[in-house]
Amino acid sequence: MRTQVAIIGGGPAGLLLSHLLHLQGIDSVVLESRDRGYVERRQRAGMLEQGTTDVLRESGAGERLDREGLVHHGLELRFGGAGHRIPLTDLTGRTVTVYAQTEIVKDLVAKRLADGGDVRFETEVIGLDASAPSVTFRDTAGEVHTLECDYIAGCDGFHGVSRPAVPGLRTFSREYPFAWLGILADVPPSTEELIYANHDRGFALHSLRSPQVSRLYLQVPPDEDIAAWPDARIWEELAARFATDDGWKLHEGPITDKSITPMRSFVAEPMRHDRLFLAGDAAHIVPPTGAKGLNLAVSDVIVLARALTERYASGSDTLLDAYSSTCLRRVWRAEHFSYWMTTLLHVDPAADGFALRLQRSHLDYVASSEAAKTMLAENYTGLPIG
Amino acid sequence: MRTQVAIIGGGPAGLLLSHLLHLQGIDSVVLESRDRGYVERRQRAGMLEQGTTDVLRESGAGERLDREGLVHHGLELRFGGAGHRIPLTDLTGRTVTVYAQTEIVKDLVAKRLADGGDVRFETEVIGLDASAPSVTFRDTAGEVHTLECDYIAGCDGFHGVSRPAVPGLRTFSREYPFAWLGILADVPPSTEELIYANHDRGFALHSLRSPQVSRLYLQVPPDEDIAAWPDARIWEELAARFATDDGWKLHEGPITDKSITPMRSFVAEPMRHDRLFLAGDAAHIVPPTGAKGLNLAVSDVIVLARALTERYASGSDTLLDAYSSTCLRRVWRAEHFSYWMTTLLHVDPAADGFALRLQRSHLDYVASSEAAKTMLAENYTGLPIG
Repeated sequence: MRTQVAIIGGGPAGLLLSHLLHLQGIDSVVLESRDRGYVERRQRAGMLEQGTTDVLRESGAGERLDREGLVHHGLELRFGGAGHRIPLTDLTGRTVTVYAQTEIVKDLVAKRLADGGDVRFETEVIGLDASAPSVTFRDTAGEVHTLECDYIAGCDGFHGVSRPAVPGLRTFSREYPFAWLGILADVPPSTEELIYANHDRGFALHSLRSPQVSRLYLQVPPDEDIAAWPDARIWEELAARFATDDGWKLHEGPITDKSITPMRSFVAEPMRHDRLFLAGDAAHIVPPTGAKGLNLAVSDVIVLARALTERYASGSDTLLDAYSSTCLRRVWRAEHFSYWMTTLLHVDPAADGFALRLQRSHLDYVASSEAAKTMLAENYTGLPIG
Repeated sequence: MRTQVAIIGGGPAGLLLSHLLHLQGIDSVVLESRDRGYVERRQRAGMLEQGTTDVLRESGAGERLDREGLVHHGLELRFGGAGHRIPLTDLTGRTVTVYAQTEIVKDLVAKRLADGGDVRFETEVIGLDASAPSVTFRDTAGEVHTLECDYIAGCDGFHGVSRPAVPGLRTFSREYPFAWLGILADVPPSTEELIYANHDRGFALHSLRSPQVSRLYLQVPPDEDIAAWPDARIWEELAARFATDDGWKLHEGPITDKSITPMRSFVAEPMRHDRLFLAGDAAHIVPPTGAKGLNLAVSDVIVLARALTERYASGSDTLLDAYSSTCLRRVWRAEHFSYWMTTLLHVDPAADGFALRLQRSHLDYVASSEAAKTMLAENYTGLPIG
C-alpha cells in the first residue's frame, strides 16, 4: 500500500491537510482511530480566526460555514460591574466567526469522500518509521497493513502516537490552578458578542453555538467534581459573575452538555523529525481563553501544505526545512497571548492584594487604551500565517 | 508658628509642591531632615515624562532644564543580538527628557529661596497631628517648634514619618529576585538613546547623564556584594550583555560612582488621612525599569496643588476628597507598567523553559507590533495626569 503523504489523525488538522494536498494533486491517506460518528460529534472549539475561515472558503470547504457561521465584529470584557467592548473589526479590519469545530469536521469529511479521498476510520496506528517513511496500522477487521509514503503528518492530537516518535524532543509546559466547567444550553444567547468576565468569584465566559444554543463557561478549581454542580448552582454562579450595575439579565435554559476541562499550556520542539511532521495538538496545547487551539492547528497545516506543494512541484526542501521554525514562531505568539488573556481574566487562588490590584489596573488599561485594545484584537483575530 | 500647608520632605515632591502653591498665593513651609548639600547631591532618577517637564517649564522652574536637558524621541530594546527602536515620539507625539533629579532639586531650592520661600534643612520632624493639623520638629540648634497649619503634605519618602501617621493603611508590595548595580562613568555615552537589553546573563541598561557622563546598570542578585564587582568585571559584563551580531562597541571610562539598588513595588492605600496627604515615595515605590518613580511623585503633587488651590479659592473639598483615588488610578497604572517592563526584560533565576520562551515571544512581539510598541511608548512617555 502506498501514498505520498500518510496523515495520522482525522480531526480538523488531518482532514484539512488531506483536502489542501488533494487540491494540489498530492495523494494522501487519513488514518483515524475513532469511528466517523464519534469524530463528527466531539465538542471542541468554535471561534475561527479570519485566516481559518479564509482557507476553508478559498479551498471550497466553506459553503456551509458561509451560510451558518456567525460573523463577529467585537467582544466584550466585563469587570467591576460594567462591560467594555473591544471592536475587533474597527481595530484590525478582520472578523472572527462562530462555527463549531465539529461542523468543520463534518464538512471536511464529506468533502474528502466526495472528492474520492481515502479516509479510514477505526484504524489503529501501531508503528511508524520517519526515515524510510511508512505507517503500520490495524484496520477494523483486525488486519495489519503497512502504508509506504514519502512523508508522514502527525495530526493525532495530544495523546497520539506521532509525538513520541520524535526523538530528543524538548517540551515546555504550564499547568494552571483552575479548570473550565463548560455547558451547552438550549437557550438563545443573552448576548450578540462573546462576554469575557472577570469577577472576584472567578472568570466566566458567555459564548454561543447558534442563535438557539448558548455555550457558557465558569472557572472552577482544577480538581473540581462535576457532581458538585447541579444545574441550578451553575446558573446562579453564572448570573453572579456576569452581573452588571445596570441589571443585565442572563437567560436560562435546559443544559444539554456539561463537562470540566483542565487548562494547560504545552509546546514540543522541534515539530519535525526526518520525514515526520507534527501539526496541531500533537505538538502544542493552549488554554482555551484566547480561542487559539483550532486556529493554530489550521495554520500549521497551511504551512505544511505549502511546503509539501513546493517539494513536489520543484523538488526544493526549503519550506519543509523551515516548517518547524516557521510554525513555532506563531505557536509561541499564540502561547503568549493565551497565557496573557488567561492570567488577565482568571482569579489565581494564590494571588495576593498586590497581584489583584495589578490585574485590575491591567483590565482598566486594556479597556481604555486604543493601543492595548488593538493588541488584544490583533492577536484574537489572528496574526499573519507563515 | 503658622503656615497654610506644612510640607514634610524637601525632595523634588515637597519642593515642587511648595513652588506650585506659592504661584497660587498659598503659603507653605518645607521641613527637610538633611542639609542642603546632601539633598542637592543624592543620585536618583533622571528620565522625565513630558508631563513632568511641562509642569517645570510652565511654573517657571524649567530654564536650566530647557538648556541642559537632553530631549529623547525613542529608546532601544536589545535582545537576541539585535536592537529594535521604539520611536516614542512618532507613536505618541510626546518626548522624554534626560535631566537628573538632583538638578531639579537644585533648581527648585534656588527658586524657592529666590521667591522668599521657607525651606528649613536639618529639621527633624518628631510628631504630627492630622486632625488639629500641626507638625512638631526640632531645628538645627536642637530647639523644638510646633508648626500649626491647615494641611500637611507627607513628601518624606519611603522611610519618612508621614506614612506611619495614617491609621488603617493597607499596603501592597512585591520583592524581585534581583537588584540593579548602577554606575556613573566619565565617558561619552555609546548611544544617543537609552538601550534596554535582555540577555541570557541578565538585564542591562545603558542610560546617560550628559554628553560626557554615562549611567549604566546591570541586573545582579538581590543580596550581591558590591566588592564582587571590580570595575573590570563590570565593563566585561556590560559588554557581554550589550553585544550585537554586528559588533556594536561599548566605550569604557573611569567609574565615579557605584551602588546596588534593590527592586521593590509598594503601594499604600489610601493616600490621605484627614488633613494629611501623602505624595511620592511616601506612598508608593516602583522598580526603576519604567523610569516612573520621580514622575509619579510629580503627578501626585500636581493633583494635590490643584486640589489645595481649589480649596483655598472656592472653599470646595471636592478635589481634596478625590485626591487619593485620583492619584491611585495613575499609581496602579505605573505599578503595572513598571512590573510589566521589569518582567519583560529581566531574567528571573526561577524561570523555566516555558517562561523563557514566553518572554522571548513577548519581546519579539513588542519589537514588531505597532500596537505593542505604542503600548510601551504611551506608558513610558506618561499617560495623562488626573
